[in-house]
Amino acid sequence: MSETAKTEKMEPDFDKSGGLLPTVAQDAETGEILMLAYMNRESFQKTLETGQVHYWSRSRKELWHKGDGSGHVQIVKSIYLDCDQDAIVVKIEQVGGVACHTGQRSCFHFRHVSGNDYEVID
Amino acid sequence: MSETAKTEKMEPDFDKSGGLLPTVAQDAETGEILMLAYMNRESFQKTLETGQVHYWSRSRKELWHKGDGSGHVQIVKSIYLDCDQDAIVVKIEQVGGVACHTGQRSCFHFRHVSGNDYEVID
Repeated sequence: MSETAKTEKMEPDFDKSGGLLPTVAQDAETGEILMLAYMNRESFQKTLETGQVHYWSRSRKELWHKGDGSGHVQIVKSIYLDCDQDAIVVKIEQVGGVACHTGQRSCFHFRHVSGNDYEVID
Repeated sequence: MSETAKTEKMEPDFDKSGGLLPTVAQDAETGEILMLAYMNRESFQKTLETGQVHYWSRSRKELWHKGDGSGHVQIVKSIYLDCDQDAIVVKIEQVGGVACHTGQRSCFHFRHVSGNDYEVID
């Protein structure tokens, strides 16, 4: 039951959520979720223009070219928008294999075990 | 190079982001990202207690037992927390195969093509 793909004019709705939309970086090859950060309009445009992921750093309050410094840039393979146009998924190639500033591959390296216990995973 | 798993007392930091943490539902089998919604402390606790995903509906401002009504509940397989403790991934089994209220499998059914054009994917 395949719906014919149709092209629609739309874009992320940066009028929502104070202009910052949660953006999930997913490994394009493995499907692993590597990190979640935020994009504003400027970082989204920069991402489109450069083909490398740019976020908005909420802590530093500035445009954040991911990997600038470490070299662990994220190369865009494809970009997805959700039904409400207020969340973004970027499928990427993670240069250097490391997305997290802790040196782990994924930022999601705590797995819930029970109660409020988590175990660290590789 | 396997780090020995260690167990840590921690939990999502609901003092951040106004008490609402972005939560990604990922198909536990395929790795597909199905939706992104928000959890507050209450919905997180309900999720742990019941083994089915509960979110906080930002539009209705109420606890949201996903699939209550449609039957498309999300059965928790595992839960992950990121390095900043302010984003959550739940790996789930999507009952009925449909996560999106539009009837699509995933809410992320708009794929960016060029400029502000998106094509609808199944």
